[in-house]
Amino acid sequence: MVVAPWPAPRRFQRMNADHAPGQERSKVPQGLRHVDFSHGDVNAFPPPPEVIDAVTAALRDGGRYAYSPYRGHHFIRELVAQRLSTFTGAPIDPASEVIITPGTQGGLFLALSALVEHGDKVAVVAPDYFANRKIVEYLEATPVPVELAYRTAAGEPARLDMDGLRAAFADGARLLVFSNPNNPTGAVYTAEDIEAIAALAAEFNAFVIVDQLYSRQIFDERPFTHLRAHTRERCLTLIGPSKTESVSGCRVGVAVAPAAIVDRMEQLQGIVSLRAAGYMQAALEPWFAESEGWLDQRIAAHARIRDDLHAVFSASSAVSTRLTEGGSYLFLDVPAAKGRIDEFVAKLRTEAAVTVTRGPEFGDFPESVRLNFSQDHQAAVDAARRIVQVAERL
Amino acid sequence: MVVAPWPAPRRFQRMNADHAPGQERSKVPQGLRHVDFSHGDVNAFPPPPEVIDAVTAALRDGGRYAYSPYRGHHFIRELVAQRLSTFTGAPIDPASEVIITPGTQGGLFLALSALVEHGDKVAVVAPDYFANRKIVEYLEATPVPVELAYRTAAGEPARLDMDGLRAAFADGARLLVFSNPNNPTGAVYTAEDIEAIAALAAEFNAFVIVDQLYSRQIFDERPFTHLRAHTRERCLTLIGPSKTESVSGCRVGVAVAPAAIVDRMEQLQGIVSLRAAGYMQAALEPWFAESEGWLDQRIAAHARIRDDLHAVFSASSAVSTRLTEGGSYLFLDVPAAKGRIDEFVAKLRTEAAVTVTRGPEFGDFPESVRLNFSQDHQAAVDAARRIVQVAERL
Repeated sequence: MVVAPWPAPRRFQRMNADHAPGQERSKVPQGLRHVDFSHGDVNAFPPPPEVIDAVTAALRDGGRYAYSPYRGHHFIRELVAQRLSTFTGAPIDPASEVIITPGTQGGLFLALSALVEHGDKVAVVAPDYFANRKIVEYLEATPVPVELAYRTAAGEPARLDMDGLRAAFADGARLLVFSNPNNPTGAVYTAEDIEAIAALAAEFNAFVIVDQLYSRQIFDERPFTHLRAHTRERCLTLIGPSKTESVSGCRVGVAVAPAAIVDRMEQLQGIVSLRAAGYMQAALEPWFAESEGWLDQRIAAHARIRDDLHAVFSASSAVSTRLTEGGSYLFLDVPAAKGRIDEFVAKLRTEAAVTVTRGPEFGDFPESVRLNFSQDHQAAVDAARRIVQVAERL
Repeated sequence: MVVAPWPAPRRFQRMNADHAPGQERSKVPQGLRHVDFSHGDVNAFPPPPEVIDAVTAALRDGGRYAYSPYRGHHFIRELVAQRLSTFTGAPIDPASEVIITPGTQGGLFLALSALVEHGDKVAVVAPDYFANRKIVEYLEATPVPVELAYRTAAGEPARLDMDGLRAAFADGARLLVFSNPNNPTGAVYTAEDIEAIAALAAEFNAFVIVDQLYSRQIFDERPFTHLRAHTRERCLTLIGPSKTESVSGCRVGVAVAPAAIVDRMEQLQGIVSLRAAGYMQAALEPWFAESEGWLDQRIAAHARIRDDLHAVFSASSAVSTRLTEGGSYLFLDVPAAKGRIDEFVAKLRTEAAVTVTRGPEFGDFPESVRLNFSQDHQAAVDAARRIVQVAERL
């Protein structure tokens, strides 16, 4: 007997989550090395060896690590609070202002769930990480797009549409969520824009969630401005040893926020997942304490891949992109793909052995794809050339 | 400047989650060994050594494990489907009918979120695991309690109130959620009750979520009936190597359900947590394949603790309990605690160095507390004696 599936709750119907980025499965051609640009390659860029050692030791230790308070082991929160106070330039109380989450994705879900009421308007940057919009929709609130002008001339910074943000707040949005560096474009917000966001949040009594997952990997000695240094009491910061450090397989993230918001997130964590894996919380112990030079080398290696990909893409008139300022993403515009982005992505897969994430995941970007270039250097460059060939044949 | 906390969304206001079981912190007396009955002690009962080896190897392997499809590594799903087909007595398609989740708690959240619409009535057994009710309330649905008659004469099985379940379904509930063995009482459902649940679900076109987290740890060679063997198409089974196997620190769980429901859970997983920690999914490799005799020894060791605790509690007229049939929980009735259960729990903490979980977490049980007896044997027995002393002084 086949039973008709129960209808999806209305929450699901809203969020349009049919496309799971990076989950596409189709045949890739023989003879080419498949490059999966939908996420980083941890063989090319493994975690710091101290992370493997710390988690392995925790597994052997057992009792001390297996269970933790829902908000995470107190000894881990103390380490994290101290290091992130220094990094972000504003103090953090380890007992009340930090929660360890199952990945920063888990933190984002808890954060938005703790702050968004049905029917709320929520300012969401376009383009930005796909889950910002989807979680807002899942919570039956309405995303209000605020444009990030990233298609700027070489050397010119991307700028957030501050008039658009003001209009969203004036129209009743009480919350802004965004990533810095921006995912998918790799743009780093200017100090001026971060200060303006803090000022607008204060003016309209609004709150801001900022996803700083990539904020340790900033290129060209560019300055990075931490929002929480300008508005601790209106700011929730998400960060974790994931992307730059290749620790995604551990699924540990950190949220820093005012105590009342952390309390609420912990209540929700008690029913969503209980806690981040006890043993995996040990992955935070070597974070910000990697061996001398480790981070500099990692940033330099990524900058070299970035530069080579940028050169490949800049040499073709069929595509265009922007030099990544932070993180490992680049957002590639393919004008000929407009209106048939799924076809282009499928061709990349079947003709070029390349997996990318489609632009429409990040907002109204029907001619773009996102690449994570934390890959084997030569394989990434070869794959970029094949992308250009497919784009030129469109 | 202090900013007033944003009001909690209505979802939070409903779920009454102020008490986070096991999270209470207060001073315990000097000189006594603190026994935390709110969860198992993985020093007393460590994970199978093969689990530590498998996860450690996965961490060293890196690339193969770090990332997985949102529903889990395909090679892990194949192992799990094969073993759970045998265990539960009904076939499972590894590609479509299994999802690996961040703990069974994560699976429960996804399952209920995928099936419960606002305003739904959901049949929830009383007593049962606290999160069943809380998640239903978080989803803005209404739990309809169905009584489990567990205060039965010695040797008599606990029985679900089938008239109550029929009434709940007749009144519009489309879903039942329950744990078997029951958490908190350790009751194992009779074959007759499981078959009756399946029949009622078919009669009313309803669906059933069953949490079988403890179904490998059944005492006294008692038979265990798997619901999915009687109604695959109306059943979602949650299970994982957590409690019996002391693998909670890895946070991996498994849900088995019809393909359309698994698809929906995966969509939601894509925004809630992305995936169970990639490396930790390796903890499932040795599951059901532990060394010869390992499980029998573990069950026997737990049965001995159970029997000794039962003897301590049976010797006092101040408390009463029921012999645990499966799992590591016992539910202790303390009639004098009625109406002042928080006071009793606090006294246990401050006078007896014992942490327990309060009965009201599991439904309308104002005179009960739950103990997880997966503890050091002698320490547990000593702590049980101290519990009796506190109960007798009430």
